Amino acid sequence: MINKLVEKIKKTGAPIVVGLDPMLNYIPEHIQEAAFSEFGETLEGAAQAVWQFNKEIIDKTYDLIPAVKPQIAMYEQFGIPGIEVFKRTVDYCKSKDLVVIGDIKRGDIGSTSAAYATGHLGRVNIRGNECIPFGEDFVTVNPYLGSDGVNPFIDVCKKEKKGLFILVKTSNPSSGEFQDRLIEGRPLYELVGEKVAEWGEECMGDAYSYIGAVVGATYPELGKVLREIMPKAYILVPGYGAQGGQGKDLVHFFNADGLGAIVNSSRGIIAAYKQEAYAKYGAQNFGDASRAAVEAMVKDISSAIEAKR
Amino acid sequence: MINKLVEKIKKTGAPIVVGLDPMLNYIPEHIQEAAFSEFGETLEGAAQAVWQFNKEIIDKTYDLIPAVKPQIAMYEQFGIPGIEVFKRTVDYCKSKDLVVIGDIKRGDIGSTSAAYATGHLGRVNIRGNECIPFGEDFVTVNPYLGSDGVNPFIDVCKKEKKGLFILVKTSNPSSGEFQDRLIEGRPLYELVGEKVAEWGEECMGDAYSYIGAVVGATYPELGKVLREIMPKAYILVPGYGAQGGQGKDLVHFFNADGLGAIVNSSRGIIAAYKQEAYAKYGAQNFGDASRAAVEAMVKDISSAIEAKR
Repeated sequence: MINKLVEKIKKTGAPIVVGLDPMLNYIPEHIQEAAFSEFGETLEGAAQAVWQFNKEIIDKTYDLIPAVKPQIAMYEQFGIPGIEVFKRTVDYCKSKDLVVIGDIKRGDIGSTSAAYATGHLGRVNIRGNECIPFGEDFVTVNPYLGSDGVNPFIDVCKKEKKGLFILVKTSNPSSGEFQDRLIEGRPLYELVGEKVAEWGEECMGDAYSYIGAVVGATYPELGKVLREIMPKAYILVPGYGAQGGQGKDLVHFFNADGLGAIVNSSRGIIAAYKQEAYAKYGAQNFGDASRAAVEAMVKDISSAIEAKR
Repeated sequence: MINKLVEKIKKTGAPIVVGLDPMLNYIPEHIQEAAFSEFGETLEGAAQAVWQFNKEIIDKTYDLIPAVKPQIAMYEQFGIPGIEVFKRTVDYCKSKDLVVIGDIKRGDIGSTSAAYATGHLGRVNIRGNECIPFGEDFVTVNPYLGSDGVNPFIDVCKKEKKGLFILVKTSNPSSGEFQDRLIEGRPLYELVGEKVAEWGEECMGDAYSYIGAVVGATYPELGKVLREIMPKAYILVPGYGAQGGQGKDLVHFFNADGLGAIVNSSRGIIAAYKQEAYAKYGAQNFGDASRAAVEAMVKDISSAIEAKR
């Protein structure tokens, strides 16, 4: 799956991923109106609004991008109808040949991580009948429990040719509270980065490992050092745009081959029509605003990579 | 909710929680047979088997115990039908007046943690209509992202009178890989424990905070030091029984008042009929075996606490 991701990045020229993290207040009134008049002001109604919103954004952007990253929390907040729409979104994106990164940040003791890995990346064997519970291509994983919390995910990746992005340094303001603490003179995130490199060694695709890392765009200076620690890991970089990161800040996350990182934007793309720059599209044409925002983001990042080379 | 938990522990005399972590191979053949003949060898069939299994165990144990802890991974592995049964299990346990600890180990950047907190502990406002997505009483939270990943959970707890158990030192063999690393001479888990105490200070119930901690039974010697660092935190102790912990090892997790900790057992209770000690019940009466295993566990832990006092 890492090979497919790299191929699609090369083909689209877009080292970006669209974060499908819908909040109700991102969804234009006409979409909400239609959903709530059909299903009432219920979890079902909210989930329907999310689905119609997602579908339009996917339809208007899928040919420009290699991958999407639905954040499962935004679906869990609408209960079971929300999770049904998470699954419908995963399936729809796969039907458009997009690589789907499930942003689930799971991680637990071995047997429990195995269940999460099966649920999100694998197949569950029900008396000989293999069923696909969610079927993402990659998932994000929390490393706090150490190797035996991560290994079951790696096992499923090997079997199913899937991949992981493991949290190394997150984009939020207080990420340093534990992640930056010094251990024998080095921050915890570097030790986690070393582990990611180690886990990834025996999980190589053609040029990159299918065990990647998450490093926030909001800490661009760390890109350089973590890039060196994990040369073969793809880095998923959240925090572009709304959280503050910009193309020129992100060049250190990339390798000299112009590859090795994929930058996520969520609100900046899916709620683009709310920004002044894209206001001309109006709420009715929110999908076109998202498309324009994708094009601008690709240009911003590609030209920064070009300028570096 | 912490007050309710403490009251129920006093009333039942049972500082324990039953982990509802069903694996298909724990479920007796006659339950599986009935489910699969009705729903086929599908996710729906597996979910139905889990539900019938859970219901019998709850029916046979609810009067002896204060709380249950369904591990959501075991439900996610069966996709949407699995999550429907997670929700049905939460609702059924609440109808039996059990405190429900959702073992979800979520944790993310602020806005995402807020969505998880809303989904699992709170109410989501859908155009003025407040809906309850999952409705657990407590959830487990991963601290790797620091305060701004935890605070949204705390905010919902304050509003809804719910509670948290934050991972401090997990029960798995490789938990030390990051959690034991020394920072200024002290292991990371102690720093996390200090944060739990700090977060918990302004979240006090009558005698205990509703911000608790997870510390594995498999590391009993740490109970003493973490008990001192977090005197007002309830400690959720996984790893009893099948993972190796025993009553006498756990006394340090309790305060002098005989309170302050709640010990989880999953496989040891729900699959008790598979153990030699309870084989006489047979697979048909697996619920009675679970009841006997609960009684034995309560006796083991209570007598260890008594012996210490």
